[in-house]
Amino acid sequence: MKKYTKYLTIIACLFLLWYSAEGQGEKIARLNLMPLPAQVAVQEGKFPVTVSFTAGIEKKTKADTGRAARAVRRMLKRLAGRTGLFFTDNKIHIKSKSLETALRIRFKREGRLRLGEDETYSLMVTPEYIQLNAETDIGILRGLETLLQLVRADKEGYYFPAVMIEDRPRFVWRGLLIDSCRHFMPVEVIKRNLEGMAAVKMNVLHWHLTEDQGFRIECKTFPKLHQLGSDGLYYTQNQIRDIIAYAADRGIRVMPEFDIPGHSTSWLVGYPGLGSAPGPYTIEREYGIKDPTFNPTIKATYKFFNKFFKEMSALFIDEYFHIGGDENNGKHWDANPKIQAFKQKHNLKDNHALQAYFNKKILKILTKYKKKMVGWDEIFQPELPNTIVIQSWRGKKALREAAKKGYNSILSNGYYIDLAQPTDFHYLNDPIPEDSNLTPEEKKRILGGEATMWAELISPETIDSRIWPRTAAIAERFWSSAQVNDVDDMYRRLDIISFQLEELGLTHIKNQAMILRRLTNGKDTTALKVLVDVMEPLKLYARHHQGATYTFFSPLTRVVDAALPDAKKARIFRKQAAAFVKGNRTKEAAEVLIKDLKLWKENHQNLQPVIVNSPVLKEIETLSKDLAKIADIGLQAVEYILKGKKPGPGWIEENKKVLQDAKKPRGHAELMVVTAIEQLVNACNGDK
Amino acid sequence: MKKYTKYLTIIACLFLLWYSAEGQGEKIARLNLMPLPAQVAVQEGKFPVTVSFTAGIEKKTKADTGRAARAVRRMLKRLAGRTGLFFTDNKIHIKSKSLETALRIRFKREGRLRLGEDETYSLMVTPEYIQLNAETDIGILRGLETLLQLVRADKEGYYFPAVMIEDRPRFVWRGLLIDSCRHFMPVEVIKRNLEGMAAVKMNVLHWHLTEDQGFRIECKTFPKLHQLGSDGLYYTQNQIRDIIAYAADRGIRVMPEFDIPGHSTSWLVGYPGLGSAPGPYTIEREYGIKDPTFNPTIKATYKFFNKFFKEMSALFIDEYFHIGGDENNGKHWDANPKIQAFKQKHNLKDNHALQAYFNKKILKILTKYKKKMVGWDEIFQPELPNTIVIQSWRGKKALREAAKKGYNSILSNGYYIDLAQPTDFHYLNDPIPEDSNLTPEEKKRILGGEATMWAELISPETIDSRIWPRTAAIAERFWSSAQVNDVDDMYRRLDIISFQLEELGLTHIKNQAMILRRLTNGKDTTALKVLVDVMEPLKLYARHHQGATYTFFSPLTRVVDAALPDAKKARIFRKQAAAFVKGNRTKEAAEVLIKDLKLWKENHQNLQPVIVNSPVLKEIETLSKDLAKIADIGLQAVEYILKGKKPGPGWIEENKKVLQDAKKPRGHAELMVVTAIEQLVNACNGDK
Repeated sequence: MKKYTKYLTIIACLFLLWYSAEGQGEKIARLNLMPLPAQVAVQEGKFPVTVSFTAGIEKKTKADTGRAARAVRRMLKRLAGRTGLFFTDNKIHIKSKSLETALRIRFKREGRLRLGEDETYSLMVTPEYIQLNAETDIGILRGLETLLQLVRADKEGYYFPAVMIEDRPRFVWRGLLIDSCRHFMPVEVIKRNLEGMAAVKMNVLHWHLTEDQGFRIECKTFPKLHQLGSDGLYYTQNQIRDIIAYAADRGIRVMPEFDIPGHSTSWLVGYPGLGSAPGPYTIEREYGIKDPTFNPTIKATYKFFNKFFKEMSALFIDEYFHIGGDENNGKHWDANPKIQAFKQKHNLKDNHALQAYFNKKILKILTKYKKKMVGWDEIFQPELPNTIVIQSWRGKKALREAAKKGYNSILSNGYYIDLAQPTDFHYLNDPIPEDSNLTPEEKKRILGGEATMWAELISPETIDSRIWPRTAAIAERFWSSAQVNDVDDMYRRLDIISFQLEELGLTHIKNQAMILRRLTNGKDTTALKVLVDVMEPLKLYARHHQGATYTFFSPLTRVVDAALPDAKKARIFRKQAAAFVKGNRTKEAAEVLIKDLKLWKENHQNLQPVIVNSPVLKEIETLSKDLAKIADIGLQAVEYILKGKKPGPGWIEENKKVLQDAKKPRGHAELMVVTAIEQLVNACNGDK
Repeated sequence: MKKYTKYLTIIACLFLLWYSAEGQGEKIARLNLMPLPAQVAVQEGKFPVTVSFTAGIEKKTKADTGRAARAVRRMLKRLAGRTGLFFTDNKIHIKSKSLETALRIRFKREGRLRLGEDETYSLMVTPEYIQLNAETDIGILRGLETLLQLVRADKEGYYFPAVMIEDRPRFVWRGLLIDSCRHFMPVEVIKRNLEGMAAVKMNVLHWHLTEDQGFRIECKTFPKLHQLGSDGLYYTQNQIRDIIAYAADRGIRVMPEFDIPGHSTSWLVGYPGLGSAPGPYTIEREYGIKDPTFNPTIKATYKFFNKFFKEMSALFIDEYFHIGGDENNGKHWDANPKIQAFKQKHNLKDNHALQAYFNKKILKILTKYKKKMVGWDEIFQPELPNTIVIQSWRGKKALREAAKKGYNSILSNGYYIDLAQPTDFHYLNDPIPEDSNLTPEEKKRILGGEATMWAELISPETIDSRIWPRTAAIAERFWSSAQVNDVDDMYRRLDIISFQLEELGLTHIKNQAMILRRLTNGKDTTALKVLVDVMEPLKLYARHHQGATYTFFSPLTRVVDAALPDAKKARIFRKQAAAFVKGNRTKEAAEVLIKDLKLWKENHQNLQPVIVNSPVLKEIETLSKDLAKIADIGLQAVEYILKGKKPGPGWIEENKKVLQDAKKPRGHAELMVVTAIEQLVNACNGDK
């Protein structure tokens, strides 16, 4: 207790210092933390990291120190990895009395992996020691990640800057959905992404495990599910247990999703008798909404699910089970006279009512096995009690409606990271917008949100670059205050976090160069990289409407797959061009534009010989040509603007057509600097 | 049969064409195959790869087509991945009658994973179809890898050049040892390296699973082995079964190594009563030869091994079990009076005799479980029958001796890839040198060889760059004829194979850039890369003698870990400098040298500001400075040579000192262009 009192006194003093200090906000920004903690006070001084760095956990209660110790072990490994230091003492000291280690950890109890568990922590770095305190060891995990983000270096060596941090999450549900069905994601993909999630303090892996395209879990009660429904691509129960334990060690819950009654073709391959059409069924190879669906009118279906969920309830220890429930088109229900008769008999006016009937039956089964039901918007039907949780893919309106009616809900609309939208779009999408008009009680029912990594267009090679770094910004949205919403500062910190995430094995940076090497067949990738840097994959669902049909077998190794959502180079150029157009006409402002434009203008002639020898690049040949053309236009426009001259009458018309053409998708991707060059062209006429 | 006749006629015709053709050798070289097949004939024409590519297997016998079909599925995925083609037919056609697919596969029986199994195949690419035939499906696997190496492109698209290939391995045992003990290697590391092995037709994974530093297998009979001996870093039996199946699917045997009686500290942590010293034992954190060893004089030891090998024999299905047997220093035997008394009583004159006594007992146990014993040189004792296999780490002399005495043997001496030696050193190390003086019968007893990836200085992040690409050249040594030994051509093809290996998930290329980014703390890595490109890790065991003690906890993330064995840039410079010195004084020859030297001369001033902000780089600061200095000397030397002028009397002496200093290791690494610049300096005096 003595220590605590001292500690509290220090906190009080420091906060005084904080309020009186100048430029505290700037100092905090420079810490480059993401998500930004609830309270940060930057102090004078630093704690140097040397070979004598030590770590210890104070064990005063009966709480198991195992998880915390393993986390400290991992933290030390990352710290050694970054600093190259050979620590002389690699023991994690566990003592009941006061610690004299460099890092001193104290928590009261083992955290349980349940919704709303305490994740608060306080972190104090002084020149003498580092104190990390929390109610639970899960809070300790969160604090260790903050500590690792604090490492910096100067001429004297590595150090932690002196700070006082008090931190806690805004939302209790901060999730990432990974779809292991459309493309199977091996165990290591899941594990490295769990590491990434932990690094940005996310706490729910929503694991989408069944789909038309594959049933991805070993099922012992109904083995034909995985044997016939997966092409051999499924997780064994041992692997699932391993992943759940791995997640638990990082304070992350694993919620499985078994999508029913639609999206279920792969289930019906082995058990066609449970389908609404006669069958037989084969694993679906294409994407989109398919007809197969469970027959909700026969007893066999519920007998099946009773046994199925009994087995899965024992395997997946989380309290929440997601049953999907989305996009059941009802065609097979309509086509089946017996199902129609059943509806009439039971007074079920439409297929929605029939699905509600099904959901109620499923809810009863889940409740029996002590699980809480989660589902997509479609399960939000008045017939269902408000113990269920609604996950909204449709929008915030649905979320608000659910909250008002007493339902807990999670937002995913606006966090569909498979749609290749820019980070700031997701970042500024708040689960509870300021104008939400909800009571505090209702607000509490909005549990948080989830980024969704649907897998139609990703492979184990590209998934990381679709999740990261954008999801780190989403994680900040879920953890930090709603007032933390400076987009420029987010992008600045995101670059740093993105690079730090690499040490966890994530491939979001390094795989691009590899894909480019493959695309050029081992030849120089410089010119291709220049092009790819200003390209993005088509947004929303446009990649599916380009003349080619994506299937389970389609290659995801093309230029579009190397291109990144929210291309940084293009984003910066757009910003610089906009500033120039708006009136920043300094020599420097013009020069940065001219430098890029010249590079792009010359680039096609460098890329051309590479394309000749790599037929896979043919599809972006005209895109590359267009970049050269519009860069040339941009150069001319900048010159007109600088000279204050107006172009001749035909010039703008002629070039607008070229710019229009340059907007056309090629290779399922698009150039991301066309609008910026358009702005430059318009500015020649004095438009801003 | 009709088809076969036709096929044979074609073969005959083609060989006629082959012999009469000009430049056949050159054409073969241009195919860039590695390992080079036994017989290749390049034809006119090509088979185009288009979206209509199809594949089928002719099923005439009862042989299971599962493994072959899975291999074709993987092959199609890689082919689509490289070409970006959306194949319209993704079925593997399995028919009993003649196939009309593009790729037509025929084999007689399922290959068994046993020593000497038939791996021959013949591959014929014609403009109309591709025929791949083999005795076993393992031969088919080998042929599919050759086919994938054949893919090329021209303006019209991707294609396979028309060829006739008849291929079979020179040695039956072509192995890679992976040490999962000094550093634990997760499942995915093993799997991606199995993929790499399969790509270059290796067929044995020698899995080093127990060591002083860790016991890495779940053991159900004696659970304290993995529970107390592994820090939680071990493979579950399910993971082991998964890996064995994964290897089997690629035609690779998995031979476990349980290193006894020495190298066994981790076993004794849980079972100290079996040790030769009183104990207790703790997991060893440092490297080198340690004292702990099993007590070979007590019954409990053999009772233990009897049960242990019973369990492991069921788990590891391979016929061969490696028992290590190396580097038992006998200190604990000497110090134990009871062991001394036992030796006297049983007339065992020294510790070698005692170990032979132990080995005989172990052999009996293994034989009972139908396993054949393999061990390092040390187990080669006249007391043991010649059913055992000797693996030589000591040298070819031992190998020859064993062969002459009727023992089967495997060579590893000369293939220690952990020692950071150049590829050509390993490549030219033939298991049966021309002067071996062995009879054909004795030669047959040399089964092959193994590259050994010991893990003291590697982590999951760096292991691939230590294995690949050098092991591809070793694989060629084991597969191809002894006459295939053109070093320049090997290096040329190695570059291509290395880049192809990336598609299997291997990280040997991409992780370097990642480590450099971490070292510069996200700053520009250009200057660091220039330096690292001419650096190599210290060779042999020198890294252990630089003042720092490597332990299990030491970071393997420093500049030395980013540096690659056999640095390509440095190798090429040395070659170009040597040619220049020897008399190639063309302008071009000088210019390539000058270009590199200028780059290096300027590099330190670019790297210096990066070092200032990255303390982890401090250790190579003077090395970087030295590179600048010697590059300047090199530039002066080239100038003297070009001008035909001799430098003043002091110049050479003075600079030789600088060059001498530049040879000193820094950061456990060394510059690899010093000798080349020395040659240039010497050449100023007219030396060649």
